[in-house]
Amino acid sequence: MFREKIKVLDCTIRDGGLMNNHDFDLRFVREVYKALSEAGIDYMEIGYKNSKRLFSPKEFGKWKFCDDQDIKKAIEGIQSQTKISVMVDVDRVDIEDVLPKSESPVDMVRVATYVKDVDKAIYLANHFAEKGYETSINIMAISRALDNEFNECLMQLERECKTKIVYIVDSFGSLYQETIEFLIKKAKHILKNKEVGMHAHNNQQLAFSNTIEAIIHDANYVDTTIFGLGRAAGNCPTELILGFLKNPKYDIRPILDIISKEFIPLQKKIEWGYFIPYAITGILDEHPRAAIALRESDQKENYRQFYEKLIAEVEE
Amino acid sequence: MFREKIKVLDCTIRDGGLMNNHDFDLRFVREVYKALSEAGIDYMEIGYKNSKRLFSPKEFGKWKFCDDQDIKKAIEGIQSQTKISVMVDVDRVDIEDVLPKSESPVDMVRVATYVKDVDKAIYLANHFAEKGYETSINIMAISRALDNEFNECLMQLERECKTKIVYIVDSFGSLYQETIEFLIKKAKHILKNKEVGMHAHNNQQLAFSNTIEAIIHDANYVDTTIFGLGRAAGNCPTELILGFLKNPKYDIRPILDIISKEFIPLQKKIEWGYFIPYAITGILDEHPRAAIALRESDQKENYRQFYEKLIAEVEE
Repeated sequence: MFREKIKVLDCTIRDGGLMNNHDFDLRFVREVYKALSEAGIDYMEIGYKNSKRLFSPKEFGKWKFCDDQDIKKAIEGIQSQTKISVMVDVDRVDIEDVLPKSESPVDMVRVATYVKDVDKAIYLANHFAEKGYETSINIMAISRALDNEFNECLMQLERECKTKIVYIVDSFGSLYQETIEFLIKKAKHILKNKEVGMHAHNNQQLAFSNTIEAIIHDANYVDTTIFGLGRAAGNCPTELILGFLKNPKYDIRPILDIISKEFIPLQKKIEWGYFIPYAITGILDEHPRAAIALRESDQKENYRQFYEKLIAEVEE
Repeated sequence: MFREKIKVLDCTIRDGGLMNNHDFDLRFVREVYKALSEAGIDYMEIGYKNSKRLFSPKEFGKWKFCDDQDIKKAIEGIQSQTKISVMVDVDRVDIEDVLPKSESPVDMVRVATYVKDVDKAIYLANHFAEKGYETSINIMAISRALDNEFNECLMQLERECKTKIVYIVDSFGSLYQETIEFLIKKAKHILKNKEVGMHAHNNQQLAFSNTIEAIIHDANYVDTTIFGLGRAAGNCPTELILGFLKNPKYDIRPILDIISKEFIPLQKKIEWGYFIPYAITGILDEHPRAAIALRESDQKENYRQFYEKLIAEVEE
């Protein structure tokens, strides 16, 4: 009954890092790697490869930079089949920071881009592919992409990009399953020689169902995070996707364990998940930054005023 | 763009009452009725009509019995187009407690039943229809219904029941959208002269998406609760469905207001929503009662042991 091609990429540390300046301690990251390895998860995304000329290591934790030596410390001595992924943003990576694959603990480099920057993303992905890495292109803010530009972007990826995987990213958590079906079908139609992936956000409690919807329409790469930890409302929960997938290589129990031991205590330090301001930005197809700012203010439960302010801005 | 036939039934007080023995105070119920009325919600389900010979009013709050005089106190003086619904369970209602419609503040009586009890449910629904009420039949635990028995149940409802509405109830929050599509299409096919409704539970964060899925396949009645308040993981959030539906008669703002003012404080007194034990019973297609008991024990975060215990019971 199961589709062997489906791969789960857990990006707890990478997307969750957006909520704590990428400052998880080494012990925590090792516990996550151990749990994902025991659960049979295919990939763990451990952070961003950002330029230290653009961002100061004094202001951000080590998983914003992902030096190879830090990754090695996070994984050494742990038995695992789980591959390591890092993400790079167009215009924020120093290309020479990424050594040839043979010298690095990293297996996959994922390039995050907007539709408009796809040329730069293709250049980067082809460069990393030539260095020996698995790669993907992750098209962010897909809800804002115009159909003709998205079409052209996909055709260009099919023609020019060595990457084997193209992800649809619902950055604002604004999409319903009808649109997921439309986008995934389109991508599968144009990308004849590539796999399609889904990265969902949970603003409207749709991250898991939109991921299932993508799987139904033949997406084979799915991003998840443990207990949904990720920016703002977070992501598709790893524990739920493991409950859904039938491949016997996956084991939900190590994930249940680490939620009890690490993520319940973490909830007292970092806030993520379903909160009304995130639902509002999702409904309005807006970036969650205003909602994150609200949650850090003394107006954090003043939902109506927040909604009316956003509506007024949209209508301006 | 909107489908005028879609009706929203908010059952916050009825399904939420399962978490506090139906003991909401009158002020709270009036605030909910006011917010739902201002938001343009079509129906408010205020509780159960249970027999006082079977359940003691000393042990349960008034919304387990829904005396007409209590309903009148909850709604009097509030301007509203929102109709009032009560639920009855097969074998738990004293039929004479339901006065003729002309003497009662109630507009709709919904009959909750398992597939096996559909004959009793038809008798009740026809009786209440004859007394002048709108009625519905709500088929519970639909994930456990055998296909041939569900078919027969639907055919019998079509032939013998005066009700205009038949609900599918995913009591355990175990269904994915493929099954929702299958069940709603089947019901729409057999019930040529009735509307179909969806009542979802949120164990796997699928209540909203399964409700959308039902709407896509022509269900026109949807159950929701404010901030998802309901048994265990709760239900499809009213605020999210109002963000989704395009009918301009609905206004999300009164719902945002009441969440700020009443439901955030309520979270300190009653626990509901996405908790791992509820996800586990959803994944395993089990009643949430063991998970509710776990959450009330000193083992409430011991997920792995809970999972292994349930698995062992299933395999016995």
